[in-house]
Amino acid sequence: MSEPTRFDLPSNRIPTAWQNLLPVMAQAGVPPLPPLHPGTREPVTPDLLAPLFPEALILQEVSTDEWIDVPGEVLDVYRLWRPSPLHRATRLERALDTPARIYFKYEGVSPAGSHKPNTAVAQAFYNKQVGVRRISTETGAGQWGSSLAMACSFFDLECLVFMVKASYEQKPYRRIFMETFGAEVRPSPTSTTNAGKSILEAHPDSTGSLGIAISEAIEIAATDGDTNYSIGSCLNHVLLHQSVIGLEAKEQMEVAGEVPDVVVGCVGGGSNYGGLAYPFMAGRLRGETPDMRFLATEPAACPTLTKGRFAYDFGDTAQLTPLLPMYTLGHDFVPAPVHAGGLRYHGDSPSLSLLVRSGHMEAAAYTQNEVFEAAVLFAKAQGIVPAPESAHAIRGAINEAIAAREAGRERVILIGLSGHGHFDMQAYDDYLNGRLPEVEFDPADQEAALAGLPDVPIA
Amino acid sequence: MSEPTRFDLPSNRIPTAWQNLLPVMAQAGVPPLPPLHPGTREPVTPDLLAPLFPEALILQEVSTDEWIDVPGEVLDVYRLWRPSPLHRATRLERALDTPARIYFKYEGVSPAGSHKPNTAVAQAFYNKQVGVRRISTETGAGQWGSSLAMACSFFDLECLVFMVKASYEQKPYRRIFMETFGAEVRPSPTSTTNAGKSILEAHPDSTGSLGIAISEAIEIAATDGDTNYSIGSCLNHVLLHQSVIGLEAKEQMEVAGEVPDVVVGCVGGGSNYGGLAYPFMAGRLRGETPDMRFLATEPAACPTLTKGRFAYDFGDTAQLTPLLPMYTLGHDFVPAPVHAGGLRYHGDSPSLSLLVRSGHMEAAAYTQNEVFEAAVLFAKAQGIVPAPESAHAIRGAINEAIAAREAGRERVILIGLSGHGHFDMQAYDDYLNGRLPEVEFDPADQEAALAGLPDVPIA
Repeated sequence: MSEPTRFDLPSNRIPTAWQNLLPVMAQAGVPPLPPLHPGTREPVTPDLLAPLFPEALILQEVSTDEWIDVPGEVLDVYRLWRPSPLHRATRLERALDTPARIYFKYEGVSPAGSHKPNTAVAQAFYNKQVGVRRISTETGAGQWGSSLAMACSFFDLECLVFMVKASYEQKPYRRIFMETFGAEVRPSPTSTTNAGKSILEAHPDSTGSLGIAISEAIEIAATDGDTNYSIGSCLNHVLLHQSVIGLEAKEQMEVAGEVPDVVVGCVGGGSNYGGLAYPFMAGRLRGETPDMRFLATEPAACPTLTKGRFAYDFGDTAQLTPLLPMYTLGHDFVPAPVHAGGLRYHGDSPSLSLLVRSGHMEAAAYTQNEVFEAAVLFAKAQGIVPAPESAHAIRGAINEAIAAREAGRERVILIGLSGHGHFDMQAYDDYLNGRLPEVEFDPADQEAALAGLPDVPIA
Repeated sequence: MSEPTRFDLPSNRIPTAWQNLLPVMAQAGVPPLPPLHPGTREPVTPDLLAPLFPEALILQEVSTDEWIDVPGEVLDVYRLWRPSPLHRATRLERALDTPARIYFKYEGVSPAGSHKPNTAVAQAFYNKQVGVRRISTETGAGQWGSSLAMACSFFDLECLVFMVKASYEQKPYRRIFMETFGAEVRPSPTSTTNAGKSILEAHPDSTGSLGIAISEAIEIAATDGDTNYSIGSCLNHVLLHQSVIGLEAKEQMEVAGEVPDVVVGCVGGGSNYGGLAYPFMAGRLRGETPDMRFLATEPAACPTLTKGRFAYDFGDTAQLTPLLPMYTLGHDFVPAPVHAGGLRYHGDSPSLSLLVRSGHMEAAAYTQNEVFEAAVLFAKAQGIVPAPESAHAIRGAINEAIAAREAGRERVILIGLSGHGHFDMQAYDDYLNGRLPEVEFDPADQEAALAGLPDVPIA
């Protein structure tokens, strides 16, 4: 009998409450900053959000409770794939010849192939509860749109997805996946919204961006009485729902008899990494595990955490969202078309931004080829072909494992593997054939984009 | 707390021995018929297979032992995804308003996305053990080639895949998946083998077939000293390795407190369905569960079990394989290009053929649109987008569930869900947009193909 490499929880051990890190941050002297009204620049009141979200989600967005019950109907759906597995990557360890012990929490087992259904299902449930007919949203790489399409099908809701046009054209399989669940998918920018029209007037050939698609989806929800808006990352209630990842992983690491030295994940808006990291971060903030390290990874082409500015900025291009206090490259910034479409976002979760700013979390950026080198190494060792987004976390973990080897010291590394790359094989083809451009961030772009930041001082 | 819908085994409960149904069949009066030498037409002796397979696999092919130990090295790899989950499809039951209870055993959780790695890993291990440098094989839909490519990467073997040209062109993601694991993929027919050359001379525009690709892969193995051949279905040792599916499912059904009334699967060569069904079939053959039903499903465009002849025939087009006693549409038959590429094979596993012929197993054939209707219904209810092949099993199960509703009686249905459809989304697009032709089997094709059958009487 070999050493165990998989640490499953029994199927009845799904977390029955989500963990909210915000009150823990406040107690630890890192209180969250309020989002501001885009017009008045006063702290946002719940009524501003009411046209977009059901009350339950608005209350979760501003909740100061640490624990919030998961509704039974949501648990019933979680049971389709949760608890997700936690593996020890012993084959990767051997390939790296490292004394580090590497674990990964794998969210690619969800039917939509990523962590995104954890919040999509909850959001669809709460919207259904208040009688909404349709949900509109945006999607970049397609992971989020796929998940919301599935969740809407489960709760008998219509689903309208604005898919960044570049992805719509490059990833037809993602579009078809959403349509299989009955969703309507439009290539953004469209002429079906004012936000889309004004972009198309200025840039008829625009291939879109996440910021534009968000503007379109919000506009539809704001103007159509029985359509609500749903967002896949960034906001507090989204990261709250994703805490099931970390809550399970904590219990699974205990089963493995380990405490991670470093927790590594990839960050686009922050929902996957926040979901994994925050239940562990609570231990750090409370002084129980003060030395546990947290490493957020991102693409060098869209280095929000490593080269952005901590400032109040809009979440979308058309400036429809509240001003969020976060690391940002500017809401006008259009990241280069790297394959990790889910990480091509100018901003980041405010809570995660604050953890980086306050020194509780580190951040690192990698270029495409070093990311795909890590992805292929992981696939050959562990079998799983990771999503380009998730491969950033693998790159970070491999660097940690190499550092452990060079230092000749053990290190326990926990990776958040947010999804598989089955819909991203073109990226692998490009990498294997040396066609992957080494896209670097252009500081001139940053300057131009940051010049458009609203002038709102951070308190 | 809702009723449980998922019946996981602890991660240390992977079967440590494979179950061989052949001795059980012999005891039950259904003894297997011997394969015959293609030249002499005498029963094949192991030395004929020695240029293609390592001795361990040849011994398994002819073994009369019911239980064969799984090597530790193979178990270590199985642990990357096994035990695979067994779910109760309560949401599908509700959608069908049926008193039937529907369970499915899901093999799509393997890194390659199907059941195929269960035997690919074992075959790669035994080949590595005897110092083989390279394995050659064929692949149609790409599930098998993907799995062998992964397994070869795990055991540091080279892998050469002859991929049916039609699939090579239609499914680039499958090719890239194999290349990610380091495999060499050639569109078959190629000019790199005599079998391929002679096909190309006669049909320069040939888009290939599984029978042709098998000929090419075998020729390479037979003529290259340190290359062996590997097959993904049909033969005894392949179905043997797949018995882990049914052994786990039996234990999981016991955890669920259920005994299936009917076990449903899809059959191309028979490895996935044999893997699930045989451990249950042993109970039927021994008289423990004499009324348990078994339903093999197949495409109406390639209806081997429902419209083929039980006869001795070659497994490949170039007549390189031994003569196998099986249901066949003739080794010259080229099935219409339905999307379930993994089910487009003229023959079937000899043991499974014998079970159908002796009345222990039923068979049914479905057209593409009824199969995809079932697939979309399943996806909307359970979230998983099934492979077109697996969707045949779902169609069969849904028909059983509807029959139960009409009869007003309970029925326990167990589905073998062999894989996901992430690389088959084009088929879904065609279905959703009404572009899926209702391909029917042409009896004239059958007559022509059967005319080429070798004249060897069945004992």
